[in-house]
Amino acid sequence: MAEAETRRRTRGGGGAARRAERSAVSVETAKYIERNIPNFEVLTEEALDIIESNAETVLAEIGVNFVNNPAALDRWRAAGAEVDGERVRIPRGLAKKLCATAPKEFTQHARNPERNVVIGGKNLVLAPVYGPPFVHDVEKGRRYATIEDFRNFVKLGYMSKWLHHSGGTVCEPTDIPVNKRHLDMLLAHMTLSDKPFMGSVTEPSRAQDSVDMCKILFGEEFVQQNTVMTSLININSPMTFDDTMMGALEVYAANNQACIISPFIVGGAMAPVSVAGTLTQVMAECLAGIAYSQIVRPGAPVIMGAFVTSIDMNSGAPTFGTPEAAHITYGAGQLARRLGLPYRSAGSFCGSKLPDAQAAYETANSLNMGLLAGVNFMLHSCGWLEGGLVSSYEKFVMDADQLGCLHHLARGVDIDENAQAMDAIREVGPGGHYLGCAHTQANFKTAFWRSDLFDYKPFETWSEEGARDTMALASVRVKRQLETYQQPALDPAIAEALEAFVAQKKAEAPDAFM
Amino acid sequence: MAEAETRRRTRGGGGAARRAERSAVSVETAKYIERNIPNFEVLTEEALDIIESNAETVLAEIGVNFVNNPAALDRWRAAGAEVDGERVRIPRGLAKKLCATAPKEFTQHARNPERNVVIGGKNLVLAPVYGPPFVHDVEKGRRYATIEDFRNFVKLGYMSKWLHHSGGTVCEPTDIPVNKRHLDMLLAHMTLSDKPFMGSVTEPSRAQDSVDMCKILFGEEFVQQNTVMTSLININSPMTFDDTMMGALEVYAANNQACIISPFIVGGAMAPVSVAGTLTQVMAECLAGIAYSQIVRPGAPVIMGAFVTSIDMNSGAPTFGTPEAAHITYGAGQLARRLGLPYRSAGSFCGSKLPDAQAAYETANSLNMGLLAGVNFMLHSCGWLEGGLVSSYEKFVMDADQLGCLHHLARGVDIDENAQAMDAIREVGPGGHYLGCAHTQANFKTAFWRSDLFDYKPFETWSEEGARDTMALASVRVKRQLETYQQPALDPAIAEALEAFVAQKKAEAPDAFM
Repeated sequence: MAEAETRRRTRGGGGAARRAERSAVSVETAKYIERNIPNFEVLTEEALDIIESNAETVLAEIGVNFVNNPAALDRWRAAGAEVDGERVRIPRGLAKKLCATAPKEFTQHARNPERNVVIGGKNLVLAPVYGPPFVHDVEKGRRYATIEDFRNFVKLGYMSKWLHHSGGTVCEPTDIPVNKRHLDMLLAHMTLSDKPFMGSVTEPSRAQDSVDMCKILFGEEFVQQNTVMTSLININSPMTFDDTMMGALEVYAANNQACIISPFIVGGAMAPVSVAGTLTQVMAECLAGIAYSQIVRPGAPVIMGAFVTSIDMNSGAPTFGTPEAAHITYGAGQLARRLGLPYRSAGSFCGSKLPDAQAAYETANSLNMGLLAGVNFMLHSCGWLEGGLVSSYEKFVMDADQLGCLHHLARGVDIDENAQAMDAIREVGPGGHYLGCAHTQANFKTAFWRSDLFDYKPFETWSEEGARDTMALASVRVKRQLETYQQPALDPAIAEALEAFVAQKKAEAPDAFM
Repeated sequence: MAEAETRRRTRGGGGAARRAERSAVSVETAKYIERNIPNFEVLTEEALDIIESNAETVLAEIGVNFVNNPAALDRWRAAGAEVDGERVRIPRGLAKKLCATAPKEFTQHARNPERNVVIGGKNLVLAPVYGPPFVHDVEKGRRYATIEDFRNFVKLGYMSKWLHHSGGTVCEPTDIPVNKRHLDMLLAHMTLSDKPFMGSVTEPSRAQDSVDMCKILFGEEFVQQNTVMTSLININSPMTFDDTMMGALEVYAANNQACIISPFIVGGAMAPVSVAGTLTQVMAECLAGIAYSQIVRPGAPVIMGAFVTSIDMNSGAPTFGTPEAAHITYGAGQLARRLGLPYRSAGSFCGSKLPDAQAAYETANSLNMGLLAGVNFMLHSCGWLEGGLVSSYEKFVMDADQLGCLHHLARGVDIDENAQAMDAIREVGPGGHYLGCAHTQANFKTAFWRSDLFDYKPFETWSEEGARDTMALASVRVKRQLETYQQPALDPAIAEALEAFVAQKKAEAPDAFM
């Protein structure tokens, strides 16, 4: 229905589309964060040396598995690794040497150049939740996600001032066949937002479709010369690289498109229960995966990822926002910087079933840690609920609001004459107050971050207005944002070509739901 | 009623009291935090030099007011300051020189020596909320606090594993006359808990009562030789030292009891809107206050405090857990360390009316910042709600649970052979899992922090159990803790003497409610 509507507009309605282009409201988006604060580091140089050396030992003596992927084994053999069945043992120093061709930072282009992001260095780029099969809102509860939900989350991401990136699978559109979902998802990111986005990784052919759609959106030559997608390649920890993910990586690397190469670890299950042991495995896995990307195409942009949770040893449930996850996030950041590569970690992680206090404590712990750990690309920075099973409408806007804190924290402290405010202290003196003084009048508008969501009213006003909690306030904000959403302008010919590509691809294959 | 009951037990029931002593359950309390992680610092040495120099300029050229306190003015004059009316101008360098006699760290003794805390250095001591006139719980809502509430919060603090300190005015017992409250509050801390506590600061005579009650509890000689209270002396920012607070400080310093000397600042109202300007004022105020304590008694233990919130310039409401508050907390920590003094800041700050997501985001922001800022004494570390107007029963146990995170974060990362876990990585290998391996079996019990409050259950179980949010879970925990609370043993003769002191003091003066 929504899809048919879109098609009608772009095919039959050139005039309407042009009018939409002229009248489109420009949505304010903050520039990606450029940190003016130091990174927080928990590991000594000696500890980092030990972990790096142990990671080299893991690669050389234990090795990693590249599964169902004879071409990868051939590549590794040619690069100097010892291949035994599917096991690849990488001599000490080789993986690190191969990683050296990966860029320290890179630009991911958006169709609106104002939304381009530079990933690496002191920067932090924020992208929304990725992957949940369910959605939740306070009125309709928890349910399987649909393409309508998907489009709603893309719209909310587009409307979020502090979100720099449209993300990828903001939720799984379970009402669309598995083998066709990626087409509708990409179309949504490309047409409903003008922020940068991620490509499909669930099949090498779908990665190729992603590249092909980008060629329509950006132009073929532009895509050949520039990075226009950052996609998520998970490693099956411990130390297993499957052919689906590696096949997608091969497509993206060959096309000079960026990949996050990231272990996905529930600590104690997929890695040792200790922080140092987990970091060793993370390092070994990232070295192997990133080295492989550089074998496929030296210079291909990559991000070193670390998705690591702790585990509740009573129930086996993954736990979030915990101290051990913080230690790993800080430590992996130090390892990534030693390797000279952009770093992905942290997010709006929580195990809670509702966007309640548990969710907020856990999320705030993780967001703060991500900022201080030097993370360059934070996937899942808003909207994550229930261990990643659920994309929450309310939590999306709650977290997205909190991301404003990270922007202001990262600015650091001004120390120029205006900031020193000696004139104000002289003017006011002992026992006075600052509200009316000249310095306050000149600076108050930009002095303090304020939430656009939280309640700052007196108790009495708050009570009269219904004594609403944060969830209720967020629900109102979700509705208002979706109601006032306006599609960003796009050349109707491009929109039409994207629609046609999707339609043709869908017609080529029967639906598959597995 | 509760009071009469206590008296009956201690006076008439020597046998019952002795039985209680024998059967008392020992409540587990974690040792104060000894950080094994670095501090996070946002200011350069150059910035710190500027702020320190500006603070000296403020003291020398603008000065501070000591109000209604001729003795203080005499002391300042004798110490070398220029006194003009109530204005005290302190020559550059003098305040810092006077501060040098204050100890870098000190031990506050508890009546149970296992609960002694060392304040300063790399340590962090956690104390509960202080000062709210209201309490809130989810069943009865918001209401004026009573002595029953006060006792309940002391009991909850005693039961909280991660809380090292019983605090002071955990809520204002508004049903007790203002001039007698301190007696009942101290009696509650002394008899219902065995953790260290704070003294009264609302009148010099009440500070003296606090000292006198401590002499009963600890013995006169012990109090002369040891610090048994840490009390909160607020500065009336900007740069005003009133006779009530200074009078209490004089009593405590003369008796070698510790004081937190702390500006209380709503940024933009009581200090400049800029971080550097606020830090300058904080530094000037702390230098003057701490120097004064050392004039009264060189060597008296003090803590440099910084209570600073930002402000919502739309409504004038103070805001909490904000980036600007974080910058000030980090920066003031650096200033305190340069001065070589213990540092007090941060807490479970929030502006929310309910212990909801807003409360948890704001609180988690502040708690994390407090840990990383090098805070040595964190007042308000649990239970704060609605800008400090309310002590929340549920938030008390929610925050107290989160304090466990700080303990584990502060441990840092082990890098010994067991932590490296190379045996585990070898044993499991690519594609295996770690749950059953020898290293996991040997280490899982202590590997990961887990909440005692949060829900880690699968969605289905959680739904069947009533789909409770964190507030509902906390409400259950509050009730369980108060039901299972057992009073720690105390020598019946001491209890009786404390009761007698309180009764006598109450009889000496008519009730006052202002």
